[in-house]
Amino acid sequence: MEQRVSLITLGVSDLARSREFYEALGWRGQEVEETVFFQAGAMAVVLWDRDKLAADAGLPSAAAAGFAGITLAQNLRSEGEVDDVLSVARAAGGAITRPAAATFYGGYAGYFTDPDGHAWEVAYNPGFTLGADGALTLPDFGSAQVETT
Amino acid sequence: MEQRVSLITLGVSDLARSREFYEALGWRGQEVEETVFFQAGAMAVVLWDRDKLAADAGLPSAAAAGFAGITLAQNLRSEGEVDDVLSVARAAGGAITRPAAATFYGGYAGYFTDPDGHAWEVAYNPGFTLGADGALTLPDFGSAQVETT
Repeated sequence: MEQRVSLITLGVSDLARSREFYEALGWRGQEVEETVFFQAGAMAVVLWDRDKLAADAGLPSAAAAGFAGITLAQNLRSEGEVDDVLSVARAAGGAITRPAAATFYGGYAGYFTDPDGHAWEVAYNPGFTLGADGALTLPDFGSAQVETT
Repeated sequence: MEQRVSLITLGVSDLARSREFYEALGWRGQEVEETVFFQAGAMAVVLWDRDKLAADAGLPSAAAAGFAGITLAQNLRSEGEVDDVLSVARAAGGAITRPAAATFYGGYAGYFTDPDGHAWEVAYNPGFTLGADGALTLPDFGSAQVETT
């Protein structure tokens, strides 16, 4: 299996509300067949009805209940950019679940959640390289790497 | 907020088990600070302890309970590639929650879940463009696009 992701689909309970939230963040997408597609760099973020998504995956649907177990992150180029995005997210109606603060790795990050509780980290990490197009390249963690079995 | 995703972090209950699962899919990453980082195209997929991830996001942790409300997808170039990846996922210990079958949009797709129930769709969609590097470009849905408010 190739080492890449093509789409992230966020199950939502109110498509219009979620579309408006992401548009308030400045995103622009296309709606077709009650689904919203956002081109997001070299992949896409999709909004779709949560129950339909569960059925599509062959999984029993369940109401959102606390932490979903997955987070998304957008890395930025400075602490100021982190503050700016969190301000935009708050103004759009997002909940700031963790205010921006210094991180143990020498960066700066905070979190917001969207109307369905999907968690986004907004981070500045000086150890990660961001290309002009936003592509992220992990460092060679080198000697910090823990040997495993 | 820029329209891109830098990282997807999957909360896991047993890091070694999850790392082995993704390695059995053919992925190779780096482990540092009890976290596994996989470069995945222009972004990264990260495995981290579920409770630590919840705490990092400022969210109450909760045991995984059914559908998380998010799915990931990898788009491929043919129906045969979809079958191949699902076979690899099954052999790695993944659960096939939806066997591959034709889709309403003229494609072919199935789903598997990883050891923590994170759902991956594996899909061939002739309407989506995949670059040589796997980058996905959405079509202009054009006249199919539904006008919204």
